[in-house]
Amino acid sequence: MTLPETPLAPELAVSEWFNTPAPLTLAGLRGRPVLLHSFQLLCPGCVAQAIPQVQRIERVFAHTDLQVVGIHTVFEHHAAMSPVTLRAFLHEYKLKSPVGVDLKEDGSDIPVTMQRFGWRGTPSCVLIGRDGTILHQAFGVEDDIAVGARIAMALSAPPPRSAAAPAATP
Amino acid sequence: MTLPETPLAPELAVSEWFNTPAPLTLAGLRGRPVLLHSFQLLCPGCVAQAIPQVQRIERVFAHTDLQVVGIHTVFEHHAAMSPVTLRAFLHEYKLKSPVGVDLKEDGSDIPVTMQRFGWRGTPSCVLIGRDGTILHQAFGVEDDIAVGARIAMALSAPPPRSAAAPAATP
Amino acid sequence: MTLPETPLAPELAVSEWFNTPAPLTLAGLRGRPVLLHSFQLLCPGCVAQAIPQVQRIERVFAHTDLQVVGIHTVFEHHAAMSPVTLRAFLHEYKLKSPVGVDLKEDGSDIPVTMQRFGWRGTPSCVLIGRDGTILHQAFGVEDDIAVGARIAMALSAPPPRSAAAPAATP
Amino acid sequence: MTLPETPLAPELAVSEWFNTPAPLTLAGLRGRPVLLHSFQLLCPGCVAQAIPQVQRIERVFAHTDLQVVGIHTVFEHHAAMSPVTLRAFLHEYKLKSPVGVDLKEDGSDIPVTMQRFGWRGTPSCVLIGRDGTILHQAFGVEDDIAVGARIAMALSAPPPRSAAAPAATP
Repeated sequence: MTLPETPLAPELAVSEWFNTPAPLTLAGLRGRPVLLHSFQLLCPGCVAQAIPQVQRIERVFAHTDLQVVGIHTVFEHHAAMSPVTLRAFLHEYKLKSPVGVDLKEDGSDIPVTMQRFGWRGTPSCVLIGRDGTILHQAFGVEDDIAVGARIAMALSAPPPRSAAAPAATP
Repeated sequence: MTLPETPLAPELAVSEWFNTPAPLTLAGLRGRPVLLHSFQLLCPGCVAQAIPQVQRIERVFAHTDLQVVGIHTVFEHHAAMSPVTLRAFLHEYKLKSPVGVDLKEDGSDIPVTMQRFGWRGTPSCVLIGRDGTILHQAFGVEDDIAVGARIAMALSAPPPRSAAAPAATP
Repeated sequence: MTLPETPLAPELAVSEWFNTPAPLTLAGLRGRPVLLHSFQLLCPGCVAQAIPQVQRIERVFAHTDLQVVGIHTVFEHHAAMSPVTLRAFLHEYKLKSPVGVDLKEDGSDIPVTMQRFGWRGTPSCVLIGRDGTILHQAFGVEDDIAVGARIAMALSAPPPRSAAAPAATP
Repeated sequence: MTLPETPLAPELAVSEWFNTPAPLTLAGLRGRPVLLHSFQLLCPGCVAQAIPQVQRIERVFAHTDLQVVGIHTVFEHHAAMSPVTLRAFLHEYKLKSPVGVDLKEDGSDIPVTMQRFGWRGTPSCVLIGRDGTILHQAFGVEDDIAVGARIAMALSAPPPRSAAAPAATP
């Protein structure tokens, strides 16, 4: 018996989804690489740099089975960044891939998915492999060339043996 | 008797002010040049281009009597861009000059100041002379060099004769 | 008798002119504001920032009597930046305003105009008033808004009394 | 017997090398991926976009066996872009990887390597696999994310069987 060398990504905790007909789970996406990007709609670095990079990633890898998933991780100004404002933001900024609202629990400003992944702030980005393990995680925006290289490596990995029934594209 | 050659700017109609201890009026600012910029917090062109230009203007003309005034002109997604969200936006984007919420009246999506000035959308910008007349008005973001030149000309104009008691800086 | 408050700009020393049918002198341009920009064709900051700014200045002030003059101030790699290479550079970068080659004298790497103005390197920029005095001088590239404001002030100054016969535009 | 599916890259034809102790050949680099970038020092698109991209590529893939090779492909203004000017250009723009001067033959403005690869102008870029075949070729500057992805794929390919003695890094 062998133990996994890298940790499985924790599961998402989302209270409301946009841009997808059905809720997503990382378990359900097993077999495909996932680019998870955490943002806040009033975070200047997210709006000026991270969101445009996500849109370039969507364009370059449109014909692959990479799944891009956004998580709206509100940890400050909670009343200012409600789902009503998020819906208009996604419309104005033309974000097409699925976005989930990170689950807020009473008693903590830090929502649940943010706690599970240990994100230090927004923007944060996680690349998850076909086998569900975390390949790379970063706070802030990284160089486009390095990001493209990492996603290509994740895409070229063989599907895991247990992924007998790969998830359908939402 | 002579008639004015250029039109006086219409008065502002504002329901709530931020970044100022007291409400502002163009009448009260007579004697100083005013740069009026109209924006919406979910307008990508405002956030990426117009707001940064306003901040460069504030920096370059900090030691002059130019008054910069923002008007949050919501004409769509009204519930998404409430004053609660605007307050957090001003904090996150570090906007320091006065900002007024354009007055919304029942029965029209277009707020009152926007109607009075005839703005076609956001961002819009108006340069008002010491005598209260509109020197220049534009929809969209113009070249920094031209903007700097126009403001310098407005600043170098002599104070109007009737401006016996110039308004104090807020 | 009164002494001038600001120094007259020193005269240009140029060995070869491009983009002008006849040599230029600052004396001959008296009565008009002059933007003098010093550059080297292999200077990365000149090519990436200063030359594009000069081209924006030319566009914004095309309908004024501002005269833009470039000085190719070679103080290193002399063999690499000959007039033959400069001619091709002006063609490729579409520089349309007059450019003079700063006069190189035996025994010094620093050409004569550079010595007279005391430039510390390239890019450098000098704004000269209608009366021939230096209004502003800077090493490096300054903010577009401030540059636009200064040129507008220089343009709005009245012509000097002695400029009875203003120079014709080349 | 099987025929190769993709063509071998033609060999370089270079009259003078910079930034390398010994001349390079693609045959000698067999076993390593090669990024070949063609430029002219007076080409605005090369200077503003392609060269900075090459430098980002060098930084991101510094710890891999990717070999970056520049070819100075002069096809116009020949006297203006001599090796003397190229040497100063490489110094000023801090290009560290090997650069060869594309061989000029009498009777043609188009140098030999440019003819062999069929480049339409500068900047052009070719990605060559470990087995010496052309993986991708483009005129102009492509998206950083796509460039990063393609290089990562080239790096992850297994070495060709015939590459028993891989070339040493210059």
